[in-house]
Order: sequence, then structure tokens, then C-alpha cells
Amino acid sequence: MATTKASLDALVIGIDIGGTGTKFGIVDRVGNVLFSGEISTKKHAEVETFIEELHKALSELIEKAGGVGRMKGIGVGAPNGNYYTGTVEYAPNLPWKGIIPLAKLIEDKFKLPVVLTNDANAAALGEMMYGAAQGMKDFIMITLGTGVGSGIVANGKLIYGHDGFAGELGHSIIIPDGRMHEGTGKRGSLESYASATGVRLTTLELLNNTDKPSMLRSLNPDEIDSKKVFEAASAGDELAMEIFEYTGKILGMALANAVMFSSPEAIILFGGLTKAGDLILKPTREHMEANVIQIFQNKVKILVSHLKESDAAILGASALAWELQ
Amino acid sequence: MATTKASLDALVIGIDIGGTGTKFGIVDRVGNVLFSGEISTKKHAEVETFIEELHKALSELIEKAGGVGRMKGIGVGAPNGNYYTGTVEYAPNLPWKGIIPLAKLIEDKFKLPVVLTNDANAAALGEMMYGAAQGMKDFIMITLGTGVGSGIVANGKLIYGHDGFAGELGHSIIIPDGRMHEGTGKRGSLESYASATGVRLTTLELLNNTDKPSMLRSLNPDEIDSKKVFEAASAGDELAMEIFEYTGKILGMALANAVMFSSPEAIILFGGLTKAGDLILKPTREHMEANVIQIFQNKVKILVSHLKESDAAILGASALAWELQ
Repeated sequence: MATTKASLDALVIGIDIGGTGTKFGIVDRVGNVLFSGEISTKKHAEVETFIEELHKALSELIEKAGGVGRMKGIGVGAPNGNYYTGTVEYAPNLPWKGIIPLAKLIEDKFKLPVVLTNDANAAALGEMMYGAAQGMKDFIMITLGTGVGSGIVANGKLIYGHDGFAGELGHSIIIPDGRMHEGTGKRGSLESYASATGVRLTTLELLNNTDKPSMLRSLNPDEIDSKKVFEAASAGDELAMEIFEYTGKILGMALANAVMFSSPEAIILFGGLTKAGDLILKPTREHMEANVIQIFQNKVKILVSHLKESDAAILGASALAWELQ
Repeated sequence: MATTKASLDALVIGIDIGGTGTKFGIVDRVGNVLFSGEISTKKHAEVETFIEELHKALSELIEKAGGVGRMKGIGVGAPNGNYYTGTVEYAPNLPWKGIIPLAKLIEDKFKLPVVLTNDANAAALGEMMYGAAQGMKDFIMITLGTGVGSGIVANGKLIYGHDGFAGELGHSIIIPDGRMHEGTGKRGSLESYASATGVRLTTLELLNNTDKPSMLRSLNPDEIDSKKVFEAASAGDELAMEIFEYTGKILGMALANAVMFSSPEAIILFGGLTKAGDLILKPTREHMEANVIQIFQNKVKILVSHLKESDAAILGASALAWELQ
């Protein structure tokens, strides 16, 4: 909550909407998150009550930061967020179905200009402006959370694509006829393996289909999550280590395909799964290298975001708002 | 060979280097190929003798077109061609191994500025300047020849990537642990299925591993190529139709992943396999649609290039040269 000289100038608001919670904050030009907060996304079956609570919570922060007059605008990162239309469309992880005119709803409520994109695109902008991608013109941002998001920067610009939805690497098919994704109904996508959800599913499969010993067997299946698997792997549990190896293998294959597509300088990973460190990074690197053709080998850095996790999502979303006129 | 008004102005030279043959021509500003020719690539074990023969053949055309003084420069499309360095690196389908400074070699011989990129990137530029992608800012070009090449345009610009090698969609892994690619040593890449070579291999596999009746069984295995399979499928041969169905399935999956990556307005297909028309296009469309998530469904056009095949490669390469200062 440090207030620096830059905070005397214009400020922006960053809102990051996730499937579980929504983080928001007020950010200055150099990337200080001056004030921040969080509300639940999941508990709002209706988007209107969500906007209501968001407005209430943010209004307090806006007052503390000097009032709405200092706010240049609002940047929003949301799953399936469309930069061109300001809508969120058919987001499998959000409670609101169909096409939601989210930018318009927020704009009307806050009386401030709003720009929206998907959460991973916002994260990519945050890394480019404040993080590991400063100075890079070609990189790919991958967020490994409940789902897998991605933002692709080429020629120094975010790729939004023809209709504003580019960067859905998480839904690319890596294992044909593989694991079913509950949200999309598609089989074998990256997200169904290389997300926190995917790690949980891999664990349940391995516990059910093998009789390998593991400390994870002592847990109630409902308790098993990627954090528990990480703890077990860190304690030397072989089954848990195998789970990360497998997750890294699939992520590495997906990254190989992404590298051959857009030939980035670096891939920047962010999110819960990166906390597993080399348990996941080592197999990811190995399988990426094993699957790229020679011209790409030993060239592409895999970096872990060094932005503070609590700030990164807000910074990313806020980075969008600086582009507003 | 029509000479139009535009041909009184500056001209460019386009050279398209393929694994088998190299096509070249002299092109005016509006896309007329005024003079053209072809030499063998394959027969030149050494790049020096290749440049020698290319220079000899092209010099005649340059004279006919008014002399070297009218030539603005040379654009070259070549597999694994690097836009930034002007080199061709480890191209599995070319006779010359390692890193070849091709742009420099041509520049020294012709005393003209040379710009080089991979053949599919050049094709994408050709489509953007003269073909089906005129006016598009986001599209993907896929060339289905002996191999599978791709060129990706986003935000109105070709994606070269950090090191100049972007757009190698043909080498992306579609079937993990799938068919071995002779040139790259990698398994399960798009190119090992959805190329003329891939169709031949699928055919040999199906003939060996099943006992389905097919008119293709009467051929000597050495004679079997994608053209023969097309003829059989056109005559109603069920096995041959199944081969195109399978090829389209894999191509469609790869296109789905590409669509979710860069969200293009259209995918433009070019090359020998497109002659099979709906035999391959129908399953390709179906499997692309089946594998994209909802936000991309029924949005992306699959178009077949309408450039004259004999001109397209030359036009694509020549399009590069107009960017020279």
C-alpha cells in the first residue's frame, strides 16, 4: 500500500474476474497497487448482483484514492472476455451463461470508460508492462490456475484475432479422444490436464487405476487438490512426482506446438501450479524440447512470473486501462 | 505472359524453392507473372551449383524483361527460411544440410537486394497482396504439398516470431507418439499425415493392415501417391475415401488448435491436396468445428486459394520484394 510520487497523477482500476473470486485494485503509472480488495464471483448467480457488490466494494477504495475524478478508466480481465465487443461469451468457469455485456454493465455503473479482455491477455500485458516480459516483442503468457489461459504477443502487440478471442491455448487438443472437459464438452484439451483441476483428476485416475503406494491414499478423495499433490511430491512421494511428470509432459507438448506456431523469445508461466517449481518445470522443459524441430531447440526460455501473485492479476487488468484515450 | 501498363515500371523477381523443384519469375506491381521458369532443386547436392543454374536461367528472363536495372529486388520463399538472417536452416526437405546463407549467396550472384522467408510465409503474403486474403488482417495460410507449411498473419502483419521461424504449424504434434516423420525424427506431426507424403503413408498402412477391397491394391506400392488416391476416391473407392476422411480429420484437429490460438478470419488452403475438393475439405471443416470451443464455432472460413498454381509460389515470393527499400 505504498504511496509513491506517481500516485499523485492519474490512476487506473484493474479488475480480474476469476471463476471463484474477483480481485480489484487501484494502480498508479509505475505499477503500485495502492488499494485492493476481493469479492466472491461464484456466489453471484446473477451478474447484476455481482456488479452491485463490486461497485460497493470498489467505491470505498476509489474514495480513499482521491475520488473518481482521478480515475482514468477501468481495465477488466475475464475468462472468454472479448476485447472488441466488451462481452464475456459462454465462459465455462463463470456462473453467468451466454453472452454478457460486462464492459457496458461496469461502465454504466461506474461512469468510467472500461476496456476488457480475457484474463490471460490481461496477464500478458501486465508482464509486458511491469514483469518478466519487459522489452520483449514476442512471448507467450500461460496462466496455470483452475484453468489454463494464454496471451500471445507477436510483433510487440497482443494477438486478439479477428473477433477478439485469440489466445485460447488452454482449449487446444493435445490428447485426441483424451479426458473430457466438463466445461466445454471437448476431449483431450490442455486445460483438462495441465490445470489445478487437471492435476486433481490425474491423481484420482492414478489412485483408482493403479495400486502404487502413495501417502495420497490416506486422504478423502474430496480433499485431494494440486496443493496436496505438491506437498506429497515434495516429501518424496513417487506417485505424486509421477503426476507432476505427466502434467509437465502434456504442458511441454502444448508449449512445443505453441513455439512452432509463433516462435516466442520466452514463455512466461504464472499461477498456482508454478509453485511446484522444478517438479513441473523440468518435465515441461524436457518435453517441449523433445517435441520442437531442430530450428527451435534450446532457444526458448521458460520463465516463471515474478510478479507478486496477489498483485499480478490486478496489474494485468489495469495495464489495459492505460491504453484508453 | 501478358504485358500490361504496370510492367513499364519497376519489377521484382520471385523465387520459390521447393524440395523437388525451384520456380522463379518476374512480376509486375499488379501481380502479372511476366516471365517464368523452373529448375530442379533435388539434383543439386551442392547449393553453389544450384545458384549457378538459377542465375543462368533467370538472367535470360531478366534480359527479356528489360535488364537488371528494372529489377527492384528478389524475394525468396524457401523451407525453413529465416526472414531476419536470410538463412535456410536444417531444412529436412532440401538437399543442403545445416545453415545455408541463401539470401547472401543469391545477393552476391545477382547483385540485387534479396529478402527471404519460408515458403508458406511467402504464400501468405501472396494471398494478402493478390489472392483470397485481400483486405484481411488475421488469417492463416496452409500449404498442403509434399510437406505442410503455414504462414500466420495477425494484426495485418506476418508473424515471424522472435527468431524469424514462426509458422511451423506443419510440425505441431497432433497425434502423440504417432507416425514418425522421416525428416525431423519427431512423432505424430501434422505434416506426417496431412501432406501428399502423409496420404501415401496412410494408404500403405491401410492396404497392409486391413483387407478392405480397393482398386489401389492393383497398383505397385511404389506407384501410389496422393493423386492416385484421389482418382480412386473420385471413382467411389471406399478405402480411398476413408483415407481422405482420415487426413481431413487430422487436418481439422490441427486447424481447430490454430483457430483457438490466433482466431483468424479465414484459413486459406493451397497445394496439391486441395484438388481433392470436398473429399478432404468436408472432413476438415467437420473436425475443425467439432474441436473448437463454442466461441469459435461457425465463424472461421476455410477457403481454397484461387491463385493459378503455376503462379502462386512465384507471386508469394515476389510479394516480399516489394517491401524492400
